[in-house]
Formats: sequence, structure tokens, C-alpha cells
Amino acid sequence: MRPVHWGAAVTFAIASLASAVAAAALPAEAAPRETRIPEAAITTAAQLRETALASDLGYRITESLTTEVGARLAGSEADARAVAWAEAKFRQLGFDRVWLEPVTFPKWERRSERAAVLGPNAQVLHLTALGGSPGGIVEGEVVRFADLATLEALPAGALAGKIAFVDYRMERARDGSGYGPGSRVRSRGPSAAIRAGAIGFVMRSAGTDSHRNPHTGITRFDEGLTPVPSAALSVPDADQLARLLQIRPQRLQVALDCGWNGEATSHNVVGEITGSGSAGGTGGSDEVVLIGGHLDSWDLGTGAIDDAAGVGITMAAAALIGQLPRRPARTIRVVAYANEEQGLYGGKAYAATHAAQAGKHQISAESDFGAGRIYAYSSSAPVHALAADRQIAEALAPLGIAYAPGTGGPGPDLGPLVERGAAWARLAQDGTDYFDLHHTPDDTFDKIDPAAVAQNVAAYAVFTYLAASAEGDFGSRAIAPK
Amino acid sequence: MRPVHWGAAVTFAIASLASAVAAAALPAEAAPRETRIPEAAITTAAQLRETALASDLGYRITESLTTEVGARLAGSEADARAVAWAEAKFRQLGFDRVWLEPVTFPKWERRSERAAVLGPNAQVLHLTALGGSPGGIVEGEVVRFADLATLEALPAGALAGKIAFVDYRMERARDGSGYGPGSRVRSRGPSAAIRAGAIGFVMRSAGTDSHRNPHTGITRFDEGLTPVPSAALSVPDADQLARLLQIRPQRLQVALDCGWNGEATSHNVVGEITGSGSAGGTGGSDEVVLIGGHLDSWDLGTGAIDDAAGVGITMAAAALIGQLPRRPARTIRVVAYANEEQGLYGGKAYAATHAAQAGKHQISAESDFGAGRIYAYSSSAPVHALAADRQIAEALAPLGIAYAPGTGGPGPDLGPLVERGAAWARLAQDGTDYFDLHHTPDDTFDKIDPAAVAQNVAAYAVFTYLAASAEGDFGSRAIAPK
Repeated sequence: MRPVHWGAAVTFAIASLASAVAAAALPAEAAPRETRIPEAAITTAAQLRETALASDLGYRITESLTTEVGARLAGSEADARAVAWAEAKFRQLGFDRVWLEPVTFPKWERRSERAAVLGPNAQVLHLTALGGSPGGIVEGEVVRFADLATLEALPAGALAGKIAFVDYRMERARDGSGYGPGSRVRSRGPSAAIRAGAIGFVMRSAGTDSHRNPHTGITRFDEGLTPVPSAALSVPDADQLARLLQIRPQRLQVALDCGWNGEATSHNVVGEITGSGSAGGTGGSDEVVLIGGHLDSWDLGTGAIDDAAGVGITMAAAALIGQLPRRPARTIRVVAYANEEQGLYGGKAYAATHAAQAGKHQISAESDFGAGRIYAYSSSAPVHALAADRQIAEALAPLGIAYAPGTGGPGPDLGPLVERGAAWARLAQDGTDYFDLHHTPDDTFDKIDPAAVAQNVAAYAVFTYLAASAEGDFGSRAIAPK
Repeated sequence: MRPVHWGAAVTFAIASLASAVAAAALPAEAAPRETRIPEAAITTAAQLRETALASDLGYRITESLTTEVGARLAGSEADARAVAWAEAKFRQLGFDRVWLEPVTFPKWERRSERAAVLGPNAQVLHLTALGGSPGGIVEGEVVRFADLATLEALPAGALAGKIAFVDYRMERARDGSGYGPGSRVRSRGPSAAIRAGAIGFVMRSAGTDSHRNPHTGITRFDEGLTPVPSAALSVPDADQLARLLQIRPQRLQVALDCGWNGEATSHNVVGEITGSGSAGGTGGSDEVVLIGGHLDSWDLGTGAIDDAAGVGITMAAAALIGQLPRRPARTIRVVAYANEEQGLYGGKAYAATHAAQAGKHQISAESDFGAGRIYAYSSSAPVHALAADRQIAEALAPLGIAYAPGTGGPGPDLGPLVERGAAWARLAQDGTDYFDLHHTPDDTFDKIDPAAVAQNVAAYAVFTYLAASAEGDFGSRAIAPK
């Protein structure tokens, strides 16, 4: 999942903006023909939905990636194996075209990490370096802050020689909305600590669990600052440190061996089920419905919910469509994105490579919020596509999915493509438990519910098939980047 | 909790044996007077129960030990701090007498541990050394066994150069009965692997959780065998290794830095609330009702459920009795045992030191099965004490505790004293979730439910007060060790 920038509030704002832009544009242009989905496609989608619900394909793909490759930090040897795995899996599943698109990024490595309270209450604490942290051994008095704002309000030098500890507890929510404030501590806390003079930064993990497994995730240091070792304590360790600080001042040693190490090139892996090109509307096989997830993971777990599940769900949905007797008009493209975790590198590279074809992306959806059941559907559909949008929602309803127009936004790796003018859909997953596991060692295959994955595959198959079969568009048009 | 030897079946056998011995002995001796508890004591116990339920003392003692000391592996620097903590806490709580009794044992240390699958599915696995394991780096093909019996049936040399993997999944049960077969893999698996020629041993943790936190615990190597590195994989890692072995043969590297390192001396810490000595029966203040838990913990967690809770519950129960306007006749003795985890050293030392006074221990009870609610009461009471035993059970009933005569056995550290003739009682805790946390990094204070601890304190206070007030005995008499 997009690590830092996309809180629910932000994505909602984008969705509203997109609708407003679409509505405002209408009077100045020729009104587009109303988009409709043929009844025959609706009938086929209903059968496809039942086929997908009875299939374990998405679950098995997720198992294959998490087991055979395991953790796959962007730029690592395992990441390269994941790319080879994805290419081979697309071919094995009968995709018509399979190719790689290179993605280059700075390479960050984690080698070791440990922390200990020193002195009369000496004890080990469990933490993990934030992605992007430098290595180093620092030792100093810990100063606790209940939230980020309190740290950010400090005058320069107030923490000279000390280690900042932001003890903000993120909240559980189905839509993941607690992650906005939670991940802001991670993205902005280290720089705030440095500005106050701190020699190190620790935070309560942005997570909702109670296990001794800290949550990693990328951080960035503001320009002009000298980065300091920055890490997240597991939730029980943050509890412990907070209790210890109520007894007496505490000295902490944090020892991280990690850091940036040159550049690496990985790949977006793309597979296509070629469309029949026989649509009665504007669409042909040169138009694509794009679905996907990201191939990389953090190194602590095996990236099961983040995001092998997204790869498995979308690969399976497209493969099941490919097994139908008749293909939909448009091409279905599945993208397994490179290095989402450290800055949406795959999504940005894809958008840059395909900017001119943004208008040929009928509509796009990304699965990157775990493996929980989908509970809501929404999209950026403009007025002329709302009838088709509702047809999709009706076909999804038997899966327990509500139509929620005007909510949400595109998935993280889709953001850059949407900025180029592509329409998006959102199949909102139940993320109530997502942040129990997200970015921790506990993100492993055993946490995946096969029935929930099958429901996801069914939803993606229905959505994708119908969008690929629509007569008319969903509002995509290439726009120049700002 | 006693790590290896005391499955429910075994303890039940002991209970039955004790009853049989008591019954068989009766005709040969003068029939003892029937033991009874005065009505005034019953009334006081009912008030004490309500006071204890409203008190957070047990919870706060548990918090203090787990926070201020944290993990306290027997023989470590933290273990010495735990001894000092216990002595100071007894005094702070107003105990009349507080003293230390030395306990000497071999010292085992854990320094580091890691494991990785090598080759085409290369990945890190999470494991932890079993207590008593030697260090060393071994690398070889993994051979999986579904259970211990299959490994034990192998001919010598069958695993030459290989690493044995026992993939037995222990079962969840309220009374912890799944731990018998689960811990047998740990106690006997390494020796069986060595006899078959293996260079290393790994097992699925004896645990019921699904987290990336392996369960440690003591193992022993049979005499005449050369120990090999022996470790437990976390449950998800065992799942992963089992899946990987279905794909192809796998090579594993296990690197442990740990081992025995000389001797250490720690202490049983003992606190007493002196009895009034005014009992109308046989009892006086030279007789004691003993309750306790163990002070040491494994090093991975902070030993909250195992067994700071037991220390907190029994210290608090005695302290609340000490605050009553009138003391019971007998003395209440709380023992915080040293080094239970690595072989009941504290319990054995206590029994050796106090063997001659086994008959002066009116009845003894140990809290070492977590911090779950107590659901059943039983004891070794012989026929002449059954009426008093029932009086205790009736006073416990309002706490939701059932009378379950003939079940269970003494706690682990009490075993050696019971072998010397001391009577025991069992306040059976709900252990349904105990093996989610037991011997893992996740055994931390946040897992403790204050209301459940208060119920435990109330139960121990009632039991202890009534036993200390009884007119007559519960069958203790010093017997020569076998």
C-alpha cells in the first residue's frame, strides 16, 4: 500500500476533484455518448462471478509468490526472482503477451538492528529501521511525545543529544483511515526530530496489533537535514518504553546497520489478455482495462497481504476472463508493479512510459489493501458513464459489495497514471485487520483467507470484464502532466 | 510453567496416587480428627474476596516486575535485579519476614540465532534456540517428520549430514493438555535426531499462535550423545518450510550462538505474613500455607504470563491477608522461585532445604499457568479434610470456580515438596490462550487482563486465608525421599 501520502481524506478530495472536472468540462465539449454495458456481457459476468467464487486460483498464486520467493525487498536478489516468477506465472496462466519494463531506483538495505534501554531498567527493545534510515549507533536520553504536532512545535536545539520518541497510537478502521495520521509520524517525524537537534528517532509502530513485531515503512528526510537513525518500536515495546519513562528518565541505545547503497533496476511485469476488438462502441483491443498490484514487499514478512494478494487477485481475475469462450472487446492488462514500497517507482515509471496512452486506458483498478473482502465499489466515472458504473455495481452487489459513488480514490501505483488523465475504479477492501500485519514479519501467507481472496477475484473479474465490454468510455483522456 | 515433565495425564496420576496413599494409610494409623474451617473465617474470607476483586494490587505488582526488570533469564544480570526487586517488593508490601535462599545451577546464554533456506527459494526463517542447545553453524538438507514418533523410529545413521524437522502442531486446550505432546517434541526430539545421525534439529514451536515469534523452552540431550544445534521455528515459519518442502528438497542453514557457560547462583525469595498462632486446632504460626510463582523468565519476552503474573497474584493475595484486622492462625509464606524454566531448580532447592518441615506445610498452591481466570479448584485433601476442602470450594464458587476433586496436580515448583509429603491445592487457570504467548517475545504485560488477575488474587486470598484458619490439617506429613 502507498506508504505515506494517500490518506482517505486526500483520496476523497481527488475523487471529488475528478468528478468536478468532468462535470465542468461537459458543456464546453460535444457531450459524449452515454456509456452502456450490453446485456450479454452482464449475463457472462454473472457466470464468471460464480466461476471465480469456486476457484482457488488467486489464493494459489498468492501462495506461490510468498512461498517460492518469500520476502522481496526492492532491488534485492529476491526481487529479481520475483520478477522472473511473475513473468513465468503470466505465461503459465496463458496470458497472450508478457513483457518487462525496467524501473530504476535507489537501493536501500537492512542488515541488522537492535535497541536497548540502559541503566537500572536495562532491557532489550524490539524495533525495526524505517526504510531510508541511515545506519549508526546512537545513545541518549529518550524524550517522549504523545503526537507528531508536539514534536514539530519544538524549537531548534531543544533535543540536542537526545532521542525523540513519538508515542502516537494509530486507530483501527475498516477503510484504513487511521493510517493517515499514523504514517505521518513515520514520514515527518524523523525530520522534525532532526530540526530539534535529536540524534535519533523512534516511534510507536504505525500498526494496530499487540505483537512484538515492529512495522517498517519508508521515511524521507527533508532536504538540507543530516539523516539520523530512525526506527519503529513494536507496539508492546512502545508501551514498555512509555511505562519506563513514568518511572525515571531513560537512556536508550539504538544500533542500526542499514542504508542506501547505489541504484538498482527492477521491472514492472506486464501480462495481457488480448481483447477481441469487436466492441460496438468506441473500444478496440488497443484499449486496455488495467488491473494490478505490486510485486515488491518489505523484507520483514513475505509480503502476503502487501501485496502478493493483490498480484494474485488481479492475475487470477484476468486469467479467468482469458478462459472464457469469448474475449471481451478490450484488452485486459495486469501490471505487477516494481518497488511500490519505497516511493511508487513502478507506478511512476508505468505512467511515464504510457503517458501518451493514458486515454487508451479505459479504466484502471489496483488491489493493494490486503486480502480482506471487498465491501464497496466506486469510480471516477463522469456523468455520461454513470449508467455503466451502476451496471458494474449491480453485478458486484451479489458479492456483498455496496455502490459508494463519490468515495475513495485510485490505488497508490495508479496515482501517477490518473494524473495523466486515466479513469480509475476502487474496489474497497475491508482493512480492519490490515494494520495488524502491514509491514511486519507477520505478513505471511497463513494470514490469508481463501474465501475472501475468491470474493476479491470474483469482484475484479466482474469489474474488469464489464469495463472491457462497455460500449463507450469511462472518461479517460490523456492530459499533459502539470 | 514446568517445561517438560508434567502433562495433565501425569499430574492426574499423581493426584490419584496421593489420594490412594492417603486412603490406604488411614486404617493403619489413628484416624485424624476431621478438619473444619470456623464459620468466622468463612465470613472473613467472603469480605476478603470482595476486597481483592476491587484491588489492582496483583496487576500492579505484575506491571512492576515486567516493566522495571523485564526479561530475567536465570543467572543473568536481570535475574539478580529480579531477586532484589522481589525482596524490596515484599518489604514494601508489609511482609513480616523476608529472606533469600540460594539456588545454584548451570548457566545457559543466548547471544544470537538465525536461519535461512538456501538455493532457489532462498529466504530467512525465524527461529529461536532451545534452552540448553549448543551453538554452532550447521547446513544440510532438511527432512520433515509429521511427529516425534516417526523421528524416533528411524534407524541410526538415517539422517547423516541432515537436519531433522519435526512439524508437529500442538493443540489448544483450556487445561493446557496439548502441551504434553507439544513439549515432548522439544525434550526428546533433539536426542532422537542425534541418534539418527542428524547435524541439527528444528521443530514447529510448541505453541498455538500464528505469529512470527518462536517459542523457546528447555531441552535435554540424553547422556552419551553429542548435542547439536536445536531450535524452534515460529508457527508461520514451520508452515512455510513445510510448503517449501512440497516444492523441492530444501537446504537449511542454522546458526546459533548460545550455550552453557559455567554456574550461576540466584535465589528463591521468600516473604511471610506471620500467623497469629491462635488456632483452635493443630495449627500454629510455625505451620505455613505456601503460595508462589517463579521469578525467572525466558529471555525473549518480559515473562508477564510466565510468570510475573503468578508472583503478582500470590504476593498480592498474601499482602491483602496481611492487611486484615486479624491474622489467621498459620503463617502465610510466598515463594518467588528461582530458575523454574531450566529445570525447577528453585522448587528442588526449596524442597531440599525444607524437607524436614514438609509436614509443617499445611497446604501449598502455585500460580504458574498465566493470568487467565481460575475455573476449577482441587486438592490432595485426604478423607478427613474433605469437608474443609469443600468449605474452601464453596467460598471460591462466587468467583466462577468449580469444585473438581480428583483432578490436576501440584504446580511445577511444588512437585519436589509434594514428593516430600506436602499437601497441595490447584487453582486451575484458563489456559486457552496461554500457549499463544508462552516462551515467546510476545509474553509481555499488555497481554494481561486486570480483571482476570483480580479474580486470581481473590481466589488465592480466599484459599490461603481459609487453609491458614482451618482447625486440623490437609494431610501433609514429611516422608523420606525415595
